[in-house]
Amino acid sequence: MKLFAARFSRTAARRAKGSILSNSVTLPLGFRFAASACGLKKNNKLDLGLLTSDVPASGAGVFTKNLVQAAPVVLSRKHLRDSRGAIRAVIVNSGNANCSTGPEGFRASSATASETALQIGCTPAEILVCSTGVIGVSLPVKKILNALPQLVAGQAASANQFTAFTQAIMTTDLVPKWEAANCRLGGKLVRLLGCAKGSGMIHPDMATMLAFVATDAAIAPSLLRKLLAELTTRTFNAITVDGDTSTNDTLLVLANGASGCPPVADGTANFRRFATALETICQSLAMQIVSDGEGAQRVVEIEVRGARTAAAANQIAKTIATSALVKTALAGGDPNWGRILAAAGRAGVPFDPDRAEITMAGIRVYRRGRAMPFNESTASRKLLSPRIKISVELRQGRASARVWTCDLTAEYVRINASYRT
Amino acid sequence: MKLFAARFSRTAARRAKGSILSNSVTLPLGFRFAASACGLKKNNKLDLGLLTSDVPASGAGVFTKNLVQAAPVVLSRKHLRDSRGAIRAVIVNSGNANCSTGPEGFRASSATASETALQIGCTPAEILVCSTGVIGVSLPVKKILNALPQLVAGQAASANQFTAFTQAIMTTDLVPKWEAANCRLGGKLVRLLGCAKGSGMIHPDMATMLAFVATDAAIAPSLLRKLLAELTTRTFNAITVDGDTSTNDTLLVLANGASGCPPVADGTANFRRFATALETICQSLAMQIVSDGEGAQRVVEIEVRGARTAAAANQIAKTIATSALVKTALAGGDPNWGRILAAAGRAGVPFDPDRAEITMAGIRVYRRGRAMPFNESTASRKLLSPRIKISVELRQGRASARVWTCDLTAEYVRINASYRT
Repeated sequence: MKLFAARFSRTAARRAKGSILSNSVTLPLGFRFAASACGLKKNNKLDLGLLTSDVPASGAGVFTKNLVQAAPVVLSRKHLRDSRGAIRAVIVNSGNANCSTGPEGFRASSATASETALQIGCTPAEILVCSTGVIGVSLPVKKILNALPQLVAGQAASANQFTAFTQAIMTTDLVPKWEAANCRLGGKLVRLLGCAKGSGMIHPDMATMLAFVATDAAIAPSLLRKLLAELTTRTFNAITVDGDTSTNDTLLVLANGASGCPPVADGTANFRRFATALETICQSLAMQIVSDGEGAQRVVEIEVRGARTAAAANQIAKTIATSALVKTALAGGDPNWGRILAAAGRAGVPFDPDRAEITMAGIRVYRRGRAMPFNESTASRKLLSPRIKISVELRQGRASARVWTCDLTAEYVRINASYRT
Repeated sequence: MKLFAARFSRTAARRAKGSILSNSVTLPLGFRFAASACGLKKNNKLDLGLLTSDVPASGAGVFTKNLVQAAPVVLSRKHLRDSRGAIRAVIVNSGNANCSTGPEGFRASSATASETALQIGCTPAEILVCSTGVIGVSLPVKKILNALPQLVAGQAASANQFTAFTQAIMTTDLVPKWEAANCRLGGKLVRLLGCAKGSGMIHPDMATMLAFVATDAAIAPSLLRKLLAELTTRTFNAITVDGDTSTNDTLLVLANGASGCPPVADGTANFRRFATALETICQSLAMQIVSDGEGAQRVVEIEVRGARTAAAANQIAKTIATSALVKTALAGGDPNWGRILAAAGRAGVPFDPDRAEITMAGIRVYRRGRAMPFNESTASRKLLSPRIKISVELRQGRASARVWTCDLTAEYVRINASYRT
């Protein structure tokens, strides 16, 4: 079955066929990429990726808020602290989350970091480790360790190797996800290049599944950390696929200064330029994850306006975005605004339904406590678009929030009823 | 497609075929039932039900906590206050929720109550009104008003009319749901008879969809109200189908004293006997709703033990019970305990995953931070049963909670992607 999601993400899919970087995009200076198939996935698929900076880069990360955290998440947090944010490489495997695997799982992540450090010539604390895949299955770490020498030897600052890296981190993803941006800082061209994976177990209370951004900007780790936390709220934390927060979510940014630009200082014009470029990448990757949501046919933006506070708006938007009844109605192109209103009504935020308004795909369907007449067939046709917007106006204040979700299809159930088998 | 749910509920289904009351069950004295097809549903299906007590009965209700409340919910609350809990009848329609229908919707519910009162000879405040079906479509109340004279004339204290009543309140339900119980109070036999409807938009933050219990016990409205609130927590509020709380949920109990028993007083042995009988009915109806959950193949009991407080245990149990990933894994009979642990980890309740244990269908699958070896095919076979239990032991206290849910199937998506069309 050819999924609609693939059609919606046709730009990304087209990119993925050949070299994903067009002539107008250049790689950030001083970074190299590599990927290999070490045997964690079946059929000799790429399942191990390496991203290295030639010099120690400023590293910052955002990690899952799930109480249950995978061994590589615990280790990478520790390494960011121990190295004071000076990072040389990120090593990522797919096909196994190395989560709930006991002390042995932690030893596996540590061994991966140590061996990578040995191969590229740095300390283990300069290595960050990520894993994604099934939970609770012992990671056969020997497969990773055996593959490392060839992986390190194969590193290149090439679009082909970056392409392979974006493929090596995929699990149920249908397409690889990446975005590039440039900005000019102190007369120097600065490049940012990001990629992400994620399709299921996606929910706003977290960073994302896995996302990596490499840039040749110069910026202190503490400032990068602060910026990243801010951006995450508006980008990765504003998307949901199924309301389930992963145990492995990680977003990492490495900035190695190889562009020769002056260090980015807080509150300056350079800071704003860099922040805008970084947010562009994060926003694009987040949207690529939703549009590749498991079984998804369409991306739905839920905007709640006129709330008393942004937190209240966000609470209502997230409740609508995770409602099984709203998401199944969207799968069928059904303008069933009653389910949207009912979801808003159970969000725990007081509002007056008789003053609220609901707009679906540009059609005002509910106003002042009751249905507005609209053409059902026109509405259905518009709601079958690959990208639609739902607005809820509360008329009680000036705060608003936006959340992105996808529809819930029978294909989602098919994928998840047999994930392990 | 013959759904598994129907097979699981085979007892209820068998009951529904003929007269649903066996010889051993007698109707509560002093109650009559009626049903008719007034045209709200297609194909001349029963869609209007009437339950009357010959004398004013003590009435108590539990209603939806959704901020958006249907007109009949608002009206019935008001009537219970205005009549001080002295109720003569409940009139129920299916096929239209009369929710978000503006002042006209409220007038429709009022007219239904007034006309019913006129026909049976009481005040409008002694009538409770319930509606269930699609939200936001104007209720064609004339169809109800036109059908009332014949409905009232057709009332009977017969099992056949009660059976018709249980069918008239159904929407996406596959089977009617009812339960009976008896107890002896002060030497008199007291009868309780309940019925319910509900299959989608079912979630613990509420009463239920619609449920009615008639009893010939004598009990003051205030004591009945108190008892009902207590029972609801352990029964209707402990079930979930899809996490969506309805705008119309209503549970009503009418006690008319026609058994001739002495009035039930708080704290007595008679109170405990009556409470046990009422809880038996509520628990049975709640379980019948889950097992008839939209698209459901199996009922899953989630028990969380060893928590610090019952609220904490309940929070974790509900998070697991509403996780799309857990519910789809259950649809496939997949012993994917990683998803259960990940859901518990995002519930917002602190616990130590390394001390927790998870048991699925009697098989210990997770203990002390890691997988326990088990036979996958045995586990899969057990998990494909119509009724399974999942236990999570936290080892941090003595509190526990139980929640009942069902699996999330492609059939659920099919039903809900085209509910209105």
